[in-house]
Amino acid sequence: MARRLRLGMVGGGRGAFIGAVHRIASRIDDRWELVAGALSSDPERARLSAADLGIAPDRAYASFEEMAEAEAARPDRIDAVAVVTPNHMHAGPAVAFLRRGIAVICDKPLAATTEQAEAIAAAVRESGAPFVLTHNYTGYPLIRQAREMVANGDLGTIRLVQAEYAQDWLTESVETAGNKQAEWRTDPAQAGAGALGDIGTHAFNLLGFVTGLRTEALLADLQSFGAGRRVDDNAHVLLRLEGGARGMLWASQVAPGNENALRLRVFGTKGGLFWEQENPNVMTFAPLGEPKRLLTRGGAGLGGGSSQFTRVPPGHPEGYLEGFATLYNDAADLIAGTGDGALLPGIEAGLEGMWFIGACQRSSAAGGEWVAR
Amino acid sequence: MARRLRLGMVGGGRGAFIGAVHRIASRIDDRWELVAGALSSDPERARLSAADLGIAPDRAYASFEEMAEAEAARPDRIDAVAVVTPNHMHAGPAVAFLRRGIAVICDKPLAATTEQAEAIAAAVRESGAPFVLTHNYTGYPLIRQAREMVANGDLGTIRLVQAEYAQDWLTESVETAGNKQAEWRTDPAQAGAGALGDIGTHAFNLLGFVTGLRTEALLADLQSFGAGRRVDDNAHVLLRLEGGARGMLWASQVAPGNENALRLRVFGTKGGLFWEQENPNVMTFAPLGEPKRLLTRGGAGLGGGSSQFTRVPPGHPEGYLEGFATLYNDAADLIAGTGDGALLPGIEAGLEGMWFIGACQRSSAAGGEWVAR
Amino acid sequence: MARRLRLGMVGGGRGAFIGAVHRIASRIDDRWELVAGALSSDPERARLSAADLGIAPDRAYASFEEMAEAEAARPDRIDAVAVVTPNHMHAGPAVAFLRRGIAVICDKPLAATTEQAEAIAAAVRESGAPFVLTHNYTGYPLIRQAREMVANGDLGTIRLVQAEYAQDWLTESVETAGNKQAEWRTDPAQAGAGALGDIGTHAFNLLGFVTGLRTEALLADLQSFGAGRRVDDNAHVLLRLEGGARGMLWASQVAPGNENALRLRVFGTKGGLFWEQENPNVMTFAPLGEPKRLLTRGGAGLGGGSSQFTRVPPGHPEGYLEGFATLYNDAADLIAGTGDGALLPGIEAGLEGMWFIGACQRSSAAGGEWVAR
Amino acid sequence: MARRLRLGMVGGGRGAFIGAVHRIASRIDDRWELVAGALSSDPERARLSAADLGIAPDRAYASFEEMAEAEAARPDRIDAVAVVTPNHMHAGPAVAFLRRGIAVICDKPLAATTEQAEAIAAAVRESGAPFVLTHNYTGYPLIRQAREMVANGDLGTIRLVQAEYAQDWLTESVETAGNKQAEWRTDPAQAGAGALGDIGTHAFNLLGFVTGLRTEALLADLQSFGAGRRVDDNAHVLLRLEGGARGMLWASQVAPGNENALRLRVFGTKGGLFWEQENPNVMTFAPLGEPKRLLTRGGAGLGGGSSQFTRVPPGHPEGYLEGFATLYNDAADLIAGTGDGALLPGIEAGLEGMWFIGACQRSSAAGGEWVAR
Repeated sequence: MARRLRLGMVGGGRGAFIGAVHRIASRIDDRWELVAGALSSDPERARLSAADLGIAPDRAYASFEEMAEAEAARPDRIDAVAVVTPNHMHAGPAVAFLRRGIAVICDKPLAATTEQAEAIAAAVRESGAPFVLTHNYTGYPLIRQAREMVANGDLGTIRLVQAEYAQDWLTESVETAGNKQAEWRTDPAQAGAGALGDIGTHAFNLLGFVTGLRTEALLADLQSFGAGRRVDDNAHVLLRLEGGARGMLWASQVAPGNENALRLRVFGTKGGLFWEQENPNVMTFAPLGEPKRLLTRGGAGLGGGSSQFTRVPPGHPEGYLEGFATLYNDAADLIAGTGDGALLPGIEAGLEGMWFIGACQRSSAAGGEWVAR
Repeated sequence: MARRLRLGMVGGGRGAFIGAVHRIASRIDDRWELVAGALSSDPERARLSAADLGIAPDRAYASFEEMAEAEAARPDRIDAVAVVTPNHMHAGPAVAFLRRGIAVICDKPLAATTEQAEAIAAAVRESGAPFVLTHNYTGYPLIRQAREMVANGDLGTIRLVQAEYAQDWLTESVETAGNKQAEWRTDPAQAGAGALGDIGTHAFNLLGFVTGLRTEALLADLQSFGAGRRVDDNAHVLLRLEGGARGMLWASQVAPGNENALRLRVFGTKGGLFWEQENPNVMTFAPLGEPKRLLTRGGAGLGGGSSQFTRVPPGHPEGYLEGFATLYNDAADLIAGTGDGALLPGIEAGLEGMWFIGACQRSSAAGGEWVAR
Repeated sequence: MARRLRLGMVGGGRGAFIGAVHRIASRIDDRWELVAGALSSDPERARLSAADLGIAPDRAYASFEEMAEAEAARPDRIDAVAVVTPNHMHAGPAVAFLRRGIAVICDKPLAATTEQAEAIAAAVRESGAPFVLTHNYTGYPLIRQAREMVANGDLGTIRLVQAEYAQDWLTESVETAGNKQAEWRTDPAQAGAGALGDIGTHAFNLLGFVTGLRTEALLADLQSFGAGRRVDDNAHVLLRLEGGARGMLWASQVAPGNENALRLRVFGTKGGLFWEQENPNVMTFAPLGEPKRLLTRGGAGLGGGSSQFTRVPPGHPEGYLEGFATLYNDAADLIAGTGDGALLPGIEAGLEGMWFIGACQRSSAAGGEWVAR
Repeated sequence: MARRLRLGMVGGGRGAFIGAVHRIASRIDDRWELVAGALSSDPERARLSAADLGIAPDRAYASFEEMAEAEAARPDRIDAVAVVTPNHMHAGPAVAFLRRGIAVICDKPLAATTEQAEAIAAAVRESGAPFVLTHNYTGYPLIRQAREMVANGDLGTIRLVQAEYAQDWLTESVETAGNKQAEWRTDPAQAGAGALGDIGTHAFNLLGFVTGLRTEALLADLQSFGAGRRVDDNAHVLLRLEGGARGMLWASQVAPGNENALRLRVFGTKGGLFWEQENPNVMTFAPLGEPKRLLTRGGAGLGGGSSQFTRVPPGHPEGYLEGFATLYNDAADLIAGTGDGALLPGIEAGLEGMWFIGACQRSSAAGGEWVAR
C-alpha cells in the first residue's frame, strides 16, 4: 500500500455541511488521512472542531494563513488542502496554499467574484500545483459513462441538452428564520449569486462534462421569488453551444417537491440519454429507432466508465458520497503521480462556472439579452 | 336516453390519422353518430372512405362546400362537424359551417396563418354557433384535477411553470422518405409552423388551462435541425406570465427516446404538481414541507375533476382516447344544452395558440428577443 | 364497411359496473351496435335501463329466457349476447343463447360453481356457437407481444412466473356498509369465490396466456381477513407448471395502496419480462447479459402483437377499455368469419379458471396441500 | 473525539468481495481503524493483503487462531473482529474471538450448518461479548423508518408481508466457468444453502425486522435450475406469522433482469408500505383511503429513523455502503458503551436465519409441506 496522503482542511468546523461531506469522501477509498485544519474563522471553534476530528493540537490552526505557513514548513506537510468555506472565502486560502506549492481541493463555485476567481487562476498558473474543483457529480459512474458514450459517437452529433437542478428548500425565506446555510448562501457578499452559483454551476458543468461542448452564448431570466431575497432563487437559461447545439438550463431553489433534482438529458442525431441524480445508478439510453435501454452502474452490457469507478456490484446502489469519493480518489492519483486527473474538474471548469454566473447576471440585468463570449 | 347527436366530418379519409381518433372519441360515450362527411379532397377517396365508415351515400359529399350547403338544408342536419384536415384547410370548412349555424369541432392549431385564424374567429362571433378546438389533453381527468387544485389555492401563488412536449419521429428527415404525416406537417404552407404548432401549442394551451395564467411575453429560440427541413423542429421558449410567474416551454420532434412526452410541472408558494401524458393516470402533488403524494385518476382521497371525467375504477388506466372522448362528451352537452362547456377550449384558446406561434416565430427571427402582447 | 354486428346484453342495467365497460368496449372499433337487452332481473329497471341505452322497446326484455326465445325468432336477431351478470347467473343465459345458436360473450369467471361451468361447457360443445370469456387483460397489446416473445423463444426455456393481482377496496368490510359491488362479490352463493375468482383467475389466465404453460399442481393458503367476510380476500398460491417451471401467484383485495395492480413477471434461461396493468403501455424486457429494454406499445423496434392491436401512435396511452375492445374486435372477426379468434379466451380458459378456483379452495381447506390435476 | 476503535478482520484478502465492503463501511463514519488481520487461509496471500491495507506486519497473521491468541494478549488489542469468510468458516474464528472476550462482527448467514451456528450461539452466551450479524439492509434509514411506523401502528394490524430478493447472476452455471464467488456460494459444504442462505435470509430477516412478527410456520418449494447446480437457486416460500398474518417470500438467483432486487411490501388494516433496495432513498406509504405518499430519506414530513441514520441532505442518495456503515456505527456505540445496539441484528437474528434455511430445506425435501416451529 502506498502511504495515505495527508489532507488539511480550511473551513468545515462544527455546524458546517460540506466539510463533513469532503471528509467522508476522502475516507471511503482509504487514500487520505485528515491531519491538519483551520476549521473555523472563530479560533475556539476551530480548536474544538479539530479535537472532534482527531486532529493533533499542533496542527489545529486558528487561521488559514497560519496553517499555510506552518504546514509548508513541516517535513510531513499536508499533500493537499480542502477549501470548504463559503464562496467568498475560497480565494484567500486557495492562493495561500497554492503559492506554497500545496495542492488545493476547492469547493464550488470557484469564488464569489470574478476578481477572486482570477486571483486563484493566477496562483494555479504560477504554482503549477494541482487544483481540483469539486463538481462532484462528475464522479458518478454513469455520468462518466455518458461522457464516454457521447465521445464514442453513440448519440451521433449532439443537438440538444436539457439540464436542470431543482430544489425547494428556499421556497420560503428561511434565511430570515435562523437557517445558517440559507443565511450565507443568500448573502450576495458571501455567495456571489444564489441558485445560479450554488446549483446552476453544477448543471452547467455537468452538461459540458458530458457533451464536451462549449457554450458560446446564453440568455437568462433570473428571479428572486423569496420575499426580501437578495440573490436569485430561480434561473431560466437558454444556451447556444458550439456546433449549433442548443440547450436549456433551469436552476431553482423554489420548486416544491424537488430535493436535489439534478437531471441531464442529451439528444443527438442517433440517440438520447437521460440521467437524474436522485436515482443515479440507472441511466436511460435511447438509440434512435430501438427500444430504450436501462443502463445500470456496472451492469449488464456496460463497459467503461460505469464499472471503472464503482465499489460494489450492480444493484447495490452507490450514492452522493461515493461519487464525491471518486474525485478524492482521482485527486490522490493525480497528486501521487499514479493518474493524470484527466476527468477531474479544475481551474478551467471553475472559470467556466464564473463565466456562466456572470453572463447570466448580465443577461438578466439587461432584461434578458443574449450574451456571447 | 337523449338522441345521439349527428356528427359530420371534413377530412379524415383513408390514410389519415387524427380523423380516426375523432371518430373513436365520439363513440366512446355514445353521444354521437357519424352520419355525413366530406372525407377527402379527392372525390373518389371521399366516397370510398364514407362507405368504409357506414355513411349513407347521399351524405358522402365531394367537398365541404357541398356538404355545408346540403346539410344546412336537411331537417335532420348534422348537429356538429368535425374539421380534421391539415391546418391550412381548417378555415374554409369552419367558416362555411359556422355561417350556417352548425357547430364546429376543429382540430388544432386553429389555422396555418393569422388571416385564416381571424376568419374563423369572425365567423364564430357572427354565428354564435359553438366552436370547440380539440386541445384534447385538457380532457385528461388529472389535468382537470390540476386546474381545480390551482384554482383552489392548493399550490399557493404560482411562481413557475415548466412545460414540455418532446417527440422523436422527425429526428431524421422522414418527410423526404415517403412519410405522409411528415410531408404536410413539415410543409410551411400546409402546417404554418413545425413543432411549435403541432405540439408546442398543446403544451402552451395546457399550461394556461391548468394555471389560469396568461402569458404576457415570451422569447423563443427555434431550430430546424432536420436536413433540409423547412419548419422548426425544436423550440426553446421562455415565458413571462401575469402576476410575475415565469415559465419554460420546450417543444421538440428531434429528441430520441420521446414518443409523446408531454409533461407539465407547476410550482407555487405552497406546493408543486407534476404530470406526464405517457402515464396520465397518476399525478404527483408535493405540498411544501410534506411528503409527495401520488394522486391517481379517481383514486383515494381525490374529489373533483379526477373522478368526474372518468369511466372505469382507479387502477384501470384510461388513455388518450378517453381524454379526447371527454371533449366530445362536453361538446355534446354544450350543443344539447345539458352543459355549459366551461372547460372546453374554444376560439379564445385557438387565438392564444396562434399568438404563441407567431410570437415565437417573430422572437426567433429577431435573434431571440422578448415579444410582449 | 361490413355491417355492424348486433349485440344483445344480459345484465348491465342501471348501477352495474361491468356492463358499461362491455358497451364501451363494443363501440370503440365500431364493429357492434347494441340492439337488445335483458338488463336487469327487475323488469322495471330492465325497461328503464334499455331506454337509457337507446334500445328499442320491443327488444327490451324482462328476462333472458324471453330474450333468447324472441331474438332467436327474429330475422335480424342478435349476432351475440354479452352476459354481464353476477357469476352465478352466467350459466342460465349462456346456455339459453348457445342452444339457439347465438354466440356468447361472457364475463369471467365462467361460473360460481363447477356444475354451472360444466353446463356452459356442454352447451358450447353441443351448439358449436362461438363462446368468448372476457379475460380482457389478454387484449393488451404488450401482453400479446409478451406471448409472442415467449413463443419465439426470446426468453429461452421458461423457469419462473411471478403473477399477482392486488387491490385494496375490501380492506375494510365494505360489504356490510352498502357497497353493492362488494355485496355480491363477497357472497359465496353469487360469486363462488372471493379474490380468487374475481382477480386471481385473471392473473392465472394471464400467466398461462403468456407462457403457454399448463399448471400441473398448486398449493394455496387462503385467508378471509375482512371481519365477517364469507369468501377469501387474499390468496397465496404456489404453482408447478409443465416442464418444471415454477410460479407464485398472489391475489389480494386487502392490500392498501393497490388499485388494480395486476403484474406479471416471466423468467427464462435467456431473459425476463415484466409488465403491469396500471401502466400497460410499457413492458420491460431483460435479455440475459444485456441492459434492460423498455418496450412500448407499438414503439421503436417492436413488431408483432404490440403494434397490431392498437389504435393510436406510441406515446399516446391506450388503457383498459381499448384492451377490452380488442376482445370485442376479435369476437366480431370470429363471428363474421374474418378472423379465427385464436387469441380469444374461450370455454377452455373458463374451465381452467374453474379448476384454479376449486383446486385452491381444496388445497387451502386441507391446510395447504399440493393439489395436482 | 473518542478514539477510533481497533478493528481486526478474518478473511477479506485479495480477490474477496464482502471484506472490502466491511472495510469501507467501517471507515465512513470514522469510528474504526483496521489494525490487524488474518486475511486469507493462504499465509502468503494473507501477508500481501495486509500490506495492501496498511496493516502493520506484526499484526498480519497467518491464521485466525494465531490472531485471536496474539491479539488477546496485547494491551492495544482489537476492539472487534470482522469475520468475512465463507459461511462454513464463520464458527471457527467467531468462537475463538468470543472466548477471548473480543466482540465479533460476522457476515451472514450465521453458518453453513446448525452445529456451527449453535457453537457460535454458545460462545456468545458464555462470553457476553457483543456479537453483530451484518444483515446490512436493516441499516437503511427508510427500513428503520418502516419498522418505526409499523411499531407506531401507522399500518394498523399487519396482515400481509410480501418479501423478495431476486438476482440473475446464476442464471447460467457460472460456477463451472471460473467465477470464484459462484464457486463457494454454490458449494453445499462451504455455503450450506444457495439462494436461501445468500439472499433469502436477508429477505426473511428484513420482514421480521420491519414487522416485529415471528414466523410460526413455512412451506417451501426449492429448485436448482442451473445445470449441475448443487444448491437451491430459487426458493418459493409461504409464511404464517404470529397473529394470523401471512407472507410470501421469493429468493432467486436465476431471474434475468434482477441485480439485487430486494423488495419488501407490508400491508395492514390501515395502510401499506413498499420499499426496494435498488432505489433505497424512497419508500411508498399508502394510508388506506388516502393518496400514496413518497417518503424520502430524511425528507419532508419524516421524523425518526429516516433522518437519524443518514449523513447527507434528502435528495442526495445514500446507498448500500452507507447502510452498511450504520451497522458499524451502531456496533461502535455498542462496544464503546455509547449506545445499546437495540437495532443491531445479533445472534438471535442469526439463529432465526438458520431456522429459516433449515425449515425451507426440510419442507421442500418433503415435497412441500408446512413446517412449524
